[in-house]
Amino acid sequence: MASTVEGGDTALLPEFPRGPLDAYRARASFSWKELALFTEGEGMLRFKKTIFSALENDPLFARSPGADLSLEKYRELNFLRCKRIFEYDFLSVEDMFKSPLKVPALIQCLGMYDSSLAAKYLLHSLVFGSAVYSSGSERHLTYIQKIFRMEIFGCFALTELSHGSNTKAIRTTAHYDPATEIRDPKTLLPMPGVMVGDIGKKLGQNGLDNGFAMFHKVRVPRQSLLNRMGDVTPEGTYVSPFKDVRQRFGASLGSLSSGRVSIVSLAILNLKLAVAIALRFSATRRQFGPTEEEEIPVLEYPMQQWRLLPYLAAVYALDHFSKSLFLDLVELQRGLASGDRSARQAELGREIHALASASKPLASWTTQQGIQECREACGGHGYLAMNRLGVLRDDNDPNCTYEGDNNILLQQTSNYLLGLLAHQVHDGACFRSPLKSVDFLDAYPGILDQKFEVSSVADCLDSAVALAAYKWLVCYLLRETYQKLNQEKRSGSSDFEARNKCQVSHGRPLALAFVELTVVQRFHEHVHQPSVPPSLRAVLGRLSALYALWSLSRHAALLYRGGYFSGEQAGEVLESAVLALCSQLKDDAVALVDVIAPPDFVLDSPIGRADGELYKNLWGAVLQESKVLERASWWPEFSVNKPVIGSLKSKL
Amino acid sequence: MASTVEGGDTALLPEFPRGPLDAYRARASFSWKELALFTEGEGMLRFKKTIFSALENDPLFARSPGADLSLEKYRELNFLRCKRIFEYDFLSVEDMFKSPLKVPALIQCLGMYDSSLAAKYLLHSLVFGSAVYSSGSERHLTYIQKIFRMEIFGCFALTELSHGSNTKAIRTTAHYDPATEIRDPKTLLPMPGVMVGDIGKKLGQNGLDNGFAMFHKVRVPRQSLLNRMGDVTPEGTYVSPFKDVRQRFGASLGSLSSGRVSIVSLAILNLKLAVAIALRFSATRRQFGPTEEEEIPVLEYPMQQWRLLPYLAAVYALDHFSKSLFLDLVELQRGLASGDRSARQAELGREIHALASASKPLASWTTQQGIQECREACGGHGYLAMNRLGVLRDDNDPNCTYEGDNNILLQQTSNYLLGLLAHQVHDGACFRSPLKSVDFLDAYPGILDQKFEVSSVADCLDSAVALAAYKWLVCYLLRETYQKLNQEKRSGSSDFEARNKCQVSHGRPLALAFVELTVVQRFHEHVHQPSVPPSLRAVLGRLSALYALWSLSRHAALLYRGGYFSGEQAGEVLESAVLALCSQLKDDAVALVDVIAPPDFVLDSPIGRADGELYKNLWGAVLQESKVLERASWWPEFSVNKPVIGSLKSKL
Repeated sequence: MASTVEGGDTALLPEFPRGPLDAYRARASFSWKELALFTEGEGMLRFKKTIFSALENDPLFARSPGADLSLEKYRELNFLRCKRIFEYDFLSVEDMFKSPLKVPALIQCLGMYDSSLAAKYLLHSLVFGSAVYSSGSERHLTYIQKIFRMEIFGCFALTELSHGSNTKAIRTTAHYDPATEIRDPKTLLPMPGVMVGDIGKKLGQNGLDNGFAMFHKVRVPRQSLLNRMGDVTPEGTYVSPFKDVRQRFGASLGSLSSGRVSIVSLAILNLKLAVAIALRFSATRRQFGPTEEEEIPVLEYPMQQWRLLPYLAAVYALDHFSKSLFLDLVELQRGLASGDRSARQAELGREIHALASASKPLASWTTQQGIQECREACGGHGYLAMNRLGVLRDDNDPNCTYEGDNNILLQQTSNYLLGLLAHQVHDGACFRSPLKSVDFLDAYPGILDQKFEVSSVADCLDSAVALAAYKWLVCYLLRETYQKLNQEKRSGSSDFEARNKCQVSHGRPLALAFVELTVVQRFHEHVHQPSVPPSLRAVLGRLSALYALWSLSRHAALLYRGGYFSGEQAGEVLESAVLALCSQLKDDAVALVDVIAPPDFVLDSPIGRADGELYKNLWGAVLQESKVLERASWWPEFSVNKPVIGSLKSKL
Repeated sequence: MASTVEGGDTALLPEFPRGPLDAYRARASFSWKELALFTEGEGMLRFKKTIFSALENDPLFARSPGADLSLEKYRELNFLRCKRIFEYDFLSVEDMFKSPLKVPALIQCLGMYDSSLAAKYLLHSLVFGSAVYSSGSERHLTYIQKIFRMEIFGCFALTELSHGSNTKAIRTTAHYDPATEIRDPKTLLPMPGVMVGDIGKKLGQNGLDNGFAMFHKVRVPRQSLLNRMGDVTPEGTYVSPFKDVRQRFGASLGSLSSGRVSIVSLAILNLKLAVAIALRFSATRRQFGPTEEEEIPVLEYPMQQWRLLPYLAAVYALDHFSKSLFLDLVELQRGLASGDRSARQAELGREIHALASASKPLASWTTQQGIQECREACGGHGYLAMNRLGVLRDDNDPNCTYEGDNNILLQQTSNYLLGLLAHQVHDGACFRSPLKSVDFLDAYPGILDQKFEVSSVADCLDSAVALAAYKWLVCYLLRETYQKLNQEKRSGSSDFEARNKCQVSHGRPLALAFVELTVVQRFHEHVHQPSVPPSLRAVLGRLSALYALWSLSRHAALLYRGGYFSGEQAGEVLESAVLALCSQLKDDAVALVDVIAPPDFVLDSPIGRADGELYKNLWGAVLQESKVLERASWWPEFSVNKPVIGSLKSKL
């Protein structure tokens, strides 16, 4: 593999081929290379390039345009590719500890090639592998090496056919008794009492084989229990290092969050690909124009800008957030590993749990809506399978569901905030959290008295305006939710009923507004830090303002309802500011895409290629399909008027 | 075929099998059979039953669960099935004229079985066939019979690779000169100068083969020209029956609308299937509950009701609208056929064009969002391909694009309204249209002075409340758009620039609000007519109010901004009314689904079957898949640690 890896030493950021995109690249207000270096850093760029080059140069990862892989073939390829990724050993354990951001970077690189590959690698190494590693003890360490060579592999038995979110109600029970594992390690046939099968085709991620397992009186050896958090002695008594249940719960929240934090990153990589495809298409696709003669790129239309540029801004804001949240998670897990039992450690676990439980819905929904918008913005070209937007939509879709349905997860976040308010009301506690995401709430009475006072679009083009509005909005929704909840309880609702009655109109928007505020806050601070090169400040400031105001505008009704907005002007200014930022960013759009788009081989979309030769690439791809110019093999059905029944026999 | 058709004489509305759905069916406030008879009428129910039974009893239409049809196989089946539909001759030309609503009903029945079948049938008979029929003259009538036996078939050459909406700029030109057809009728090989090919796999509707055709100096005989609207004499001079170009344009608007009106119906059938699947699932799927012991159906949760029931209401409101719009279109086309050249006929063409251009976007977007919500509301079960929500999403998706991108089409509607206002301002003309959809605008100064005065949720539970708000909203947006447009022009924008600058913030919401108002208005009148059986008034009234208020709530920010709403209460009442209607309708949901759902064979979704045996049906379907319990054929890759490259050779 050495030679491939050294491929990373060739020019890090090569020029793009000249072509129809030159005009926009020339009009960009900044250097895309400078932004790439500022956003990623040279080491990370080199790391990604190494991975992308390895995939591009390895026949096992060859793209097969037009080929309809069978389910089984696809799964086999995905298994072999995952195994090969382990062989490449892109990321040593030392590296992982030295620069933890390489973990999500690796996942994003694999996911940009194929979501099924990223998912399989993630489940195998970070879920199965690290579960054995972190929850297991000395006696399990022997497995680790075999796991990372994929000699043994795990399945993630998460739920029951009839139980999704309600894990408490799962009916599978384990009784202490000695025995052996699910399939025979030699023949891979199920062991006695175990029935395993495949659940069949899914909407996407079909490189991943999801199955079911039924256990009837299966014996599992005591040694197989991952016993760091709790063990069973030979005598059959349960022992745990945790004295206090609440603490053990806090400790396990950490591992719950890691899945959701990974999903944020998986969702964003899909949005990166989709906006790259749609914006390069929009910069080269011409339709109508001011005169009969001249047609202009569709990206010149305010409508197309408004449909796509907010999602480009979302990519930058959410990608930054997901990295920062991942680093917070690393801090939490280091604390767990070092046996930190402090109150801060427990609070950190709760805060990260609250942020992950709302950012996973935010990222997966933003991406799902963004991919759909990109598909439609590319018209019929977007509906062609070869351009990949359909696969992205199907592969991103489960991000809205697994690790908790988005709407259900948001309750975790609203409950966290309600708990803090109750604590403040009853015990006079301050709003303080390790990551400071809730500290601003201390000033909530004062914040609730504020009003929107920006009167010109020019004054609105900064994310600080949206930040102030978001802080008011979170305070408003928190107070309203708290009051509604108590009112429901006073009128006789049980806690269960009361929370259900408040979630749609109060808890849900509260959780979303809170996490949007946090995303906006972190990106705002990031783009306004002194270390930002002067030549990048304008474009980054616009991205930050566009994402913030566009997200905020979906809450405009609440801003009016609660009195933060009043009069016609407030809503107009907000709307006009979003459109103004779109038009300010349209000449930078292609360069901003150049920063986030993977190489053409990985992006794998004729209309999204870096050379912008839209029709040439599309035409070339069409002609690559098999039998494109042939008559259908069943063409005689057309012309000969034979009775259908006759011809039918051969078909069924 | 006689025997199959007589199948329609067996009991028209059979009882549903007893099972887990009984509880909800028993709680329904009305008889689903009575509603089915009121909504469809006995003749239509019989007609649909005949079609569904024919498909279910015909081996050519057998479902193949789990089978992954190749693109070519699927297209062949779809071709044979389409041909078979013509053989069944479900709808005679006489029938078509006697009860025109059987046309969209037939399309919906076919589409419920498979969108590709409906699309192929629609394109072949109603686009190709009726184009030859309506635009052709005596000399083409010989083709008609052959067309309806699918002995000859057309392709719909709509656009160029580089031209979608901008048909004016299409570069293909025709010069008068004698010659022959695209493919040789015997061998189906392309004729000299013609290159035809396939554009490859699409996201959905892959039973339909979309291709491309290139013409290089191809000769087409003068006789092939469809010459009703315009002809070329043997001497090569162009002649047309229309004296005036504007009239010829008006006449062709009619045929433009028919495609869009059909798409409204195609979209709605997808939404019918999706809500049927998701609501039957929600009524049988249990998760959590007030106590540790008891789990309740997820349909009992306000969140699940709020996610799904508005889409159930949308099905009823939009389905009624699409039927009424289809009847308006029939009136228009009868006028065209009878050579009506009156001003009313031209105005009718324009009004229908404006309504179709906005209802196609409304229906296709509502369905796209509804299917996504249903998919997510069914969690992992919704992500299983066998449950069909993915296919519905993929097959509905192009409804957002063809016959005009939704966002572009909305300009047709806003331009129509702006034209009427300009006519009123400059010529003092009244707002009058044949279908009366714009007549209310005559009172716009007075309407703009109105305010929202409902102060209790109870007073808000009627669609009349939403109707008043919508009328104000359309007047407000029309005035704002008109002023913004003139302001842009005064500040030096060309008409082209000005319209583009106004579309996102003004023209787009104006067009959507106008068509939503029309949909709400027509359904409101429908459910309040005296002929509604008393036992159905409550449930129909709730459906009408829920769709109206839910749609209106997306405009809440504008209602505040323009001053129709003021204070906290208005927004709260609107929000609470939507939730109250959801909870009032949840016990009727299953019965309302029973009215719109096709037989299980057609619905083809284990979690959506009428018996509600969720897990039994799911389990049965899983075990039907091929090799479900087998090891993957490539299992040795797992256990044997052979070098991947070695095993690779056989794979690629």
